[in-house]
Amino acid sequence: MAERPVVAVLEGSRPVRGLGRVAELAEVRTVQAAELHRALDGADVLYLWDYFSGALPAAWHAAGSLRWLHVAAAGVDRLLFPELVASNVVVTNAHGIFDQPMAEYVLAGMLHAAKGFGPLRDRQNEGIWAWREGRNIAGTRALIVGTGSIGRHTARLLRAVGVQVEGVGRTAREHDADFGRVHSSSALKRLVGDVDWLVLLAPLTPATENLVHAGVIDALPPTAVLVNAGRGRLLDEQALVRRLTAGTLAGAVLDTFAVEPLPAAHPLWSLPSVLVTPHLASNADSWLDDLAAQFERNFLLWIAGEQLPGVVDKDLGYVPSGTA
Amino acid sequence: MAERPVVAVLEGSRPVRGLGRVAELAEVRTVQAAELHRALDGADVLYLWDYFSGALPAAWHAAGSLRWLHVAAAGVDRLLFPELVASNVVVTNAHGIFDQPMAEYVLAGMLHAAKGFGPLRDRQNEGIWAWREGRNIAGTRALIVGTGSIGRHTARLLRAVGVQVEGVGRTAREHDADFGRVHSSSALKRLVGDVDWLVLLAPLTPATENLVHAGVIDALPPTAVLVNAGRGRLLDEQALVRRLTAGTLAGAVLDTFAVEPLPAAHPLWSLPSVLVTPHLASNADSWLDDLAAQFERNFLLWIAGEQLPGVVDKDLGYVPSGTA
Repeated sequence: MAERPVVAVLEGSRPVRGLGRVAELAEVRTVQAAELHRALDGADVLYLWDYFSGALPAAWHAAGSLRWLHVAAAGVDRLLFPELVASNVVVTNAHGIFDQPMAEYVLAGMLHAAKGFGPLRDRQNEGIWAWREGRNIAGTRALIVGTGSIGRHTARLLRAVGVQVEGVGRTAREHDADFGRVHSSSALKRLVGDVDWLVLLAPLTPATENLVHAGVIDALPPTAVLVNAGRGRLLDEQALVRRLTAGTLAGAVLDTFAVEPLPAAHPLWSLPSVLVTPHLASNADSWLDDLAAQFERNFLLWIAGEQLPGVVDKDLGYVPSGTA
Repeated sequence: MAERPVVAVLEGSRPVRGLGRVAELAEVRTVQAAELHRALDGADVLYLWDYFSGALPAAWHAAGSLRWLHVAAAGVDRLLFPELVASNVVVTNAHGIFDQPMAEYVLAGMLHAAKGFGPLRDRQNEGIWAWREGRNIAGTRALIVGTGSIGRHTARLLRAVGVQVEGVGRTAREHDADFGRVHSSSALKRLVGDVDWLVLLAPLTPATENLVHAGVIDALPPTAVLVNAGRGRLLDEQALVRRLTAGTLAGAVLDTFAVEPLPAAHPLWSLPSVLVTPHLASNADSWLDDLAAQFERNFLLWIAGEQLPGVVDKDLGYVPSGTA
């Protein structure tokens, strides 16, 4: 590479970390959203450290020299606007960084529901000693929607504690290393009739939006618990609220919502059988340093002309299995 | 056996289950505490289905023909009064029945603390979307006090999810199948300085009472969480409250207390970093049927003159490892 490449960094409210090596090899322009178009002018690389920002479409006119975009997030549903999809810009995501925290969140949520820790916490806050019987998760059946890196890591963790796991993906297959059986998402309504846990870890794409429609939710048995750490719009929230309000579904553990932050008047806030967490399932321990180290690794590969890991298929809307 | 043996059953508030086979082979006298002395007169066997009852000492004068006592509980600390210890009555407990629910409770409690689900639940009840960073449990270090059946099962479950586990027991040893290293309880104060989780699953005996004294609690690092599913009197509750109130200890998950139910004015109720649960860690799914089936199995062995499993060493106060 003849000249020093230009790396635009969209910082946001959380100070960007770990650009030391990158700054030795490139001109780094760290900006906030309002300055993004200026930073993009002549930039080869865009690093979206502020992974929730929606600033890119408005600055896209200045991205003519852009060749690679890396986002410090797993889900790219907010990012893939039509001009970016149609462009030759390579998009990579934070593939793998969130596998462990996401899998632990799912297990934590399942155990929280199984042991009744939500209602027990509420009784504690009232100073009431109210015995109740819990459930074991060993031997229960979980259906995981989403067979990417996070879904697979979750499947392995749940199997390690004795949960029976199957997967739901684009295409059905037998003898999957992590899931055993993977079912086609078209069979979801038929599949959920005997699950204990329906776990949503799929990316949000045109193919998965409302995948868990009212018909699927109505087919869940009364003892089932829904865990959503994927995206709120994977499911029909109104149908879920309806069953939870009627007391005909055991519970839900929800980290993502159709609208975030969850609006103040939303009924999900006050359903005792629901745990609402504010989109944090992927955020644990050293995640910010891990994200920084991943971008540095990727940048060194990119500048050396090597193949990048975690390349998003912009038409599918995620990193296909086996490519990362 | 020439005559039909007599089995006295102390029922309590929860109807006793599964005595069908026993009633075919024995005279079964199912009573409440006030009638226990009458049922014990001439009884060969006492079955404490009401495992929390303290009624036996007052009725002991009538237990002259008693040969075997089975209690549908793991901890026998409330049961072992001096006359019973001095007698020839064989005592068995519900060895093994609670291994899975207890281990899952410990894992659930650890994940609850690691992910901040207690404070998140409180924010949910206020309708507040308050992001916070969690911790992963994989790679953290747990010290389990108690190397009996429940402690071992817990060790295996925690290892399965990537937690580093060591044990604390009567005698130190290397190369333990479940714990790797088992330390002597006399080393506890020195050992806890770098743990993430101090997990109490020991029986309450004269040797373990106040084992986790103020010196041990003060030696815990500020990031540590204490999980007690053993007995409240294993630890110095006041020292624990002091550190939690000062905010110098990350949290506690407590299922057992020095006084139960936990008194209304006790400070543990209202510490946000504490989860208080009402002595239910062992109660999940089919536990009542499992207890019933275990007594039936034991009774058939007893009537056949076979060795009983789960025999309590009345001097030690628990079922020694390797004997059950």
